[in-house]
Amino acid sequence: MRTRQCLNIHATPVQVQYLGQPTETSPLCTQHLHINHPLKGCQSPTSPIPSQRSSASRMALPEPSKYSQGSVLGSVNPDLASERQTASFSVEKLTVWLDGGEEHTQRRRAVVGRSATHTVVFAQLYINGKCYGVHPFIVQIRSLRDHSLCPGITAGDIGPKMNFENVDNGYLMLQNVRVPRENMLNKFCEVQPDGTYVRQGSQKINYFTMTTVRISLISDEVIIPLMKACTIAIRYSVVRRQSKLKPGEQEAKILDYQTQQEKLLPQLATAYAFHFINDYLQELFNRVYGEIRKKNFNTLPELHAFSSGFKAMVTQYSTSAVQICLQACGGHGYSSLSGLPSLYTRIIASCIYEGENTILLLQTARFLIKCFRAASAGQTVPPSVTYLAAVKPGKCPAKNKLEFLSPDIYTEAYQHMAARLVSSTAAKLQDLIQSGVKKHDAWNQCTVQLAQAAKAHCHYITVKNFAETVEKLKTEAGIQKIMKHLCDLFALHGIFSNAGVFLHDGYVSGAQMDMITASYLDLLAVIRKDAVPLVDAFDFTDKSLNSALGSYDGQVYQRLYEWAQKSPTNKQMSPAYERYLKPLLHNTQSKL
Amino acid sequence: MRTRQCLNIHATPVQVQYLGQPTETSPLCTQHLHINHPLKGCQSPTSPIPSQRSSASRMALPEPSKYSQGSVLGSVNPDLASERQTASFSVEKLTVWLDGGEEHTQRRRAVVGRSATHTVVFAQLYINGKCYGVHPFIVQIRSLRDHSLCPGITAGDIGPKMNFENVDNGYLMLQNVRVPRENMLNKFCEVQPDGTYVRQGSQKINYFTMTTVRISLISDEVIIPLMKACTIAIRYSVVRRQSKLKPGEQEAKILDYQTQQEKLLPQLATAYAFHFINDYLQELFNRVYGEIRKKNFNTLPELHAFSSGFKAMVTQYSTSAVQICLQACGGHGYSSLSGLPSLYTRIIASCIYEGENTILLLQTARFLIKCFRAASAGQTVPPSVTYLAAVKPGKCPAKNKLEFLSPDIYTEAYQHMAARLVSSTAAKLQDLIQSGVKKHDAWNQCTVQLAQAAKAHCHYITVKNFAETVEKLKTEAGIQKIMKHLCDLFALHGIFSNAGVFLHDGYVSGAQMDMITASYLDLLAVIRKDAVPLVDAFDFTDKSLNSALGSYDGQVYQRLYEWAQKSPTNKQMSPAYERYLKPLLHNTQSKL
Repeated sequence: MRTRQCLNIHATPVQVQYLGQPTETSPLCTQHLHINHPLKGCQSPTSPIPSQRSSASRMALPEPSKYSQGSVLGSVNPDLASERQTASFSVEKLTVWLDGGEEHTQRRRAVVGRSATHTVVFAQLYINGKCYGVHPFIVQIRSLRDHSLCPGITAGDIGPKMNFENVDNGYLMLQNVRVPRENMLNKFCEVQPDGTYVRQGSQKINYFTMTTVRISLISDEVIIPLMKACTIAIRYSVVRRQSKLKPGEQEAKILDYQTQQEKLLPQLATAYAFHFINDYLQELFNRVYGEIRKKNFNTLPELHAFSSGFKAMVTQYSTSAVQICLQACGGHGYSSLSGLPSLYTRIIASCIYEGENTILLLQTARFLIKCFRAASAGQTVPPSVTYLAAVKPGKCPAKNKLEFLSPDIYTEAYQHMAARLVSSTAAKLQDLIQSGVKKHDAWNQCTVQLAQAAKAHCHYITVKNFAETVEKLKTEAGIQKIMKHLCDLFALHGIFSNAGVFLHDGYVSGAQMDMITASYLDLLAVIRKDAVPLVDAFDFTDKSLNSALGSYDGQVYQRLYEWAQKSPTNKQMSPAYERYLKPLLHNTQSKL
Repeated sequence: MRTRQCLNIHATPVQVQYLGQPTETSPLCTQHLHINHPLKGCQSPTSPIPSQRSSASRMALPEPSKYSQGSVLGSVNPDLASERQTASFSVEKLTVWLDGGEEHTQRRRAVVGRSATHTVVFAQLYINGKCYGVHPFIVQIRSLRDHSLCPGITAGDIGPKMNFENVDNGYLMLQNVRVPRENMLNKFCEVQPDGTYVRQGSQKINYFTMTTVRISLISDEVIIPLMKACTIAIRYSVVRRQSKLKPGEQEAKILDYQTQQEKLLPQLATAYAFHFINDYLQELFNRVYGEIRKKNFNTLPELHAFSSGFKAMVTQYSTSAVQICLQACGGHGYSSLSGLPSLYTRIIASCIYEGENTILLLQTARFLIKCFRAASAGQTVPPSVTYLAAVKPGKCPAKNKLEFLSPDIYTEAYQHMAARLVSSTAAKLQDLIQSGVKKHDAWNQCTVQLAQAAKAHCHYITVKNFAETVEKLKTEAGIQKIMKHLCDLFALHGIFSNAGVFLHDGYVSGAQMDMITASYLDLLAVIRKDAVPLVDAFDFTDKSLNSALGSYDGQVYQRLYEWAQKSPTNKQMSPAYERYLKPLLHNTQSKL
C-alpha cells in the first residue's frame, strides 16, 4: 500500500504488457513492451502538477465523438448526482438542481512537455498476465526529424498555472504504442528476452528515484526561497518605520515591535533549522545509497519514510513561513517588485509536487507505527526511532523560564510528545481493530492523528539535530552563541505554537507553559539585535534576491520608485483616456 | 494612539495648513488649504497596497539630482548599516560587507489611480499651528480638459503586483498644492471661513469611513471567495477518485478519506460561520449608525473595536481556508483553470488592506483591556463584553464525547478561554508597569498575547453567534439539523486546533480533549454526507465560479481538456523548436 500511494501522486500507472518476440509492424525494435491502454498521466520530476491516477477500469479512451457532442457537458457526473441524491436533508429547499445523467468519467489530465522528444512513463509491468508492479519506461513521443507527435501519441499544453508559466507541463495520451524492451530503466529490475523477470533487492528500489528527488528539492526549491524571503522581510523591517514606540521619539523600525519580531524571527530560526536538517538528510541518503550499492537494501524503508516526512514538514512550514514574510511587509509585500509574490506562489506548489504532503506523512506514520510495535516487542529498530518504545508518563523537570533554554529540557519534551502521539495513535488503531472495525477502515479513521504523529516525529528530529549541530560549533564561540539562541527560538516557538500536544498529558504544566512563553518572547528581543547579520549571512546577491525591499543597501524607496518608472504603464498615456474618460469628462463639462 | 495606528495603514497623514483668505496665486478658489509638504501616500479604499506613512521630518522631497546619481544606490541605508554594526557577534565571518554610507531615507511609495482626476487625501489638519487630527480632503490631481497632471502633482503607476493587475494603484506626490476649503469632507467636522474649527461628536467619527469599508468588504471580498473555494474543492473531491479504501473495491472518492474531510469540511463550516457573523456585524453597524444619526456617538468605540477584530479574524481564517482548498485539490488546484489560484492570490491581500490585521487586533485588544478593567471595577460595559469580568477558575462539566455536541458546553469553553486570555494579559501588563517598565514598553511586550486575546474574543463571539443562529432555525427542522452539525464542527475544530489555550488552566482536561477530538472526527463523517448540497446551497453559477474543477455537473476532466485546448500554446508550433531544438536534434543525428 505504501508504494502504491507513493506512486499515485507521481504518475499514472498504466498496464504495460510484455509481448516477447519482435512483431512485423515495428521491425526496428527487436523486443517490445506494448502499451495497450491509453495513458492518462506521466509527469516530469520537476512538474508542479501531479497527474491523475486512474484504475484500468476507467481507462478506456472515449469515442472521439464524445468530445464533440455538446450533450456531454449537459450531463452531470454520476458521483456528484449521487451525492446530491443521498444527502440526508432536503436540498431542493436550498438550491436549484440540474437534471442528473450518466456518462463515463474521463481522466485526461496528465503532464508532459511541449518540447520533449522522450518521456519517462511509470507503468505497471505485466508479463504473461502477471503484474510485477510499477516500472519506468523511456517512451519516444515526438519525431527527431520534424518534431511531430509519434503515431498513437496525443499531447499538448495543460494551460495556465500558478507561477509555473515557464514550465513545460503537458498532457499525454498513448494508444497502442510499442516500446523497445531496452527502454525499461533496469538498473535493479530487468525483463530478459525470454520474458523472465529478474530483480535485485527490494521492490521498493523502483521508487528510489522519487526519494532522491524529494531530498534534492528540499534545498533548492524550499530552503533557499525561505532564506530569500527572510532576507527581504527582515532587511525591510529595519528600514521601514511606523508609529512611535516611545512618545516624543522618532518613529520606530517595525522590527522593534514585538509582533513583527514574532512574525519574522521564528521563520529565520526555521530557515537555519531546515538548513541543518537538510545536511542530516543528505547524510542519511549517502549512507543508504552506499549500502544499496553494496546490495544491502535494509535501510531503504527508513530513508523512504524520513525523506517523505521531512519533505512534507519542510515544504509545509516553509510555505507558511514565506507567506508570513510576505504579509509582514504589509502592502509592499504584495508588490511584485518586492520579489515575495513569486517566491510564494512558487514554494506553495512544493506541498503537492513529488508527493502530496498528507500522503507522504502517512507513509512516515506507517513506518513509525511499525517501528513502535517492533520496538515495544523488543525487536531491533533503527536508532532514530528507538525512543518510540521508551515513552512513559512523566513531568518536565524545568522549574523556571531559564531552564527552558536547555536543549536537554526541550529536546526531551519534543521526544516525549512525539512518542506519546505515535503510541496513542497506535493504541487507537489497535482498539478499533479489536472492536471489530476492518483494518482499512480503522486506518482511515486514524489518519488525521497519524499525520499529526508523523509531523511530531519530524519536528522532534529537527529540534534534536539543531541542538546537536550547535553543540558541534564549540570552536567558534561567537557563532555558537547566536546559533544556540536560534535553536532555542525554533524549539520554544514550536512548543508555544503547538501548546496543546505538550500540555495534553501534563508533561508540561500550565505554569511551565507560561515560563516557556516568557522565555520565547525574551528570545525575540535577543535575536532581534542580530537579525540583519543573520540574513546577510545567507549571502544572496541583490541580483538573485531581485527585490526592491530586500537589497543589501536598504535603499527601499528609491528602488521602488525607480523600478516602478520602468513599468510600461508609466511610459504611455492611459489608453482608457482617449476612448472612455475623455468623452465622459468633456460631455459632463458641456452639460455644466 | 488607537486612531493613529488605524490611520497609518490607510493613508499617509500629511500636514495641511489652513491659510484663511484667498490668495492671488489661485484666484479661482475662495478659501484654501495649503499642502506644504510633498505628500507621500494616499490610498483608494479598494487598494490592496497600503501606503507608506512617514513623519513630517522624513518628508522633505529630495533634490531631483539625488535620483539621477548612481552613487545613491551605492550607499547603504543608515538603519541597515547600524543594524550590521551593532550586532553582538562577528558578522565578518559569515558574509561580505559593502561599505556603509549616509543618505536620506525617502519614502516615496504611495497609491493613487492612473486614471483618477480626483483623490481623497487623509491629512493632519493644522489651523494657526494647532493640529486637529486627520481629515479627508478631495484633491484634484489631473486636468479635466486634457488629463495632464495638475501643477505640483507627481503621479504614476506603482508597477506589477500580486493578482491586482487590473487595479489602478499609483504613487502620488504633492508639492505646494492648494485645496479649496469646501473640499474638506465635513459631515461631522468643518473649518469655517474665519478658521474656526467645528466638530460634531467624537473625533473618532473621522475614521468611520474606514469602519464602514472594513465591514462592507467582509462579505464580497472575503466570504464569497471562501464559499467559491469550498464549492470548487468539495465538488472536485467527490469526482476525483484515488486509491482504494477497501481492498477489491472501486477507487474511493477522495472526500471519503478522513484527511480530506478534515481539510475541507471545517472550511465549509467556517464559511457558514462567517456568513452569520457578517449578519451580526451588519446589525451592529446599522444600530450604531442609527445612533450616530441621532448624534449619539457612545457606541462608536465598540463598533470600531469589533469591526477591526472581525475584519482581522475573518480575513486571516478565510485566507488560510482558501489555501487549504487549493492544496486539497492537489496539482489540479494549481492550474489556473481550477479558478483557485486567482481566488487565493486575491484574498490574501485582504489581510493587509483596510488595516493590517495585527494592528487591527491590537485595536480590539485595547478596547477589551479597557472594558475588562471597567467591568472589574463594577462599571457598565457593552453587553458583548460583560463576560470578561466573570472569569473564574473552573472545569468543563462535560463527561463524554456526546456532551461536547452541546452548544452550551462549547460556547462556555470559548467564553472561559477568551476571558482568561484577556484577564491574564491585563495582569501581565499591570505587573510590568508596577515593576517599573514604562507604559509603552509594557504594551509592546504584551502585544503577542494581546493579539491572541483579541482573536480569542472574536472566535468566541463567532461560535456564540453561530449557535444562536441555529437556535433560531426551529421552524426548519431539516436545515436546523445540518446547521447544528456545522456549528458543532466549527466549534470543535477550533478547540482541536487551539488545544493549548483550552488545556492551559485545566478548564478542559487531557481526557476531555480526547472526547472533543473523537466528537470532532465523528462529525466529519456525518457532514461528509451532506457536503455537496451544502456547497450547492451557495448557489454560484458555473460562470461565476469559472472553474473546470468546480462546475455544477462535475465534468471535470472534459472541461480541463477542452479549456486547455484553448490555450494559445496548443494552437501554434513551439517557437523553441525551429530556433533551438531543430538545430540541436539534427546536429546530434548527423554525428551518430
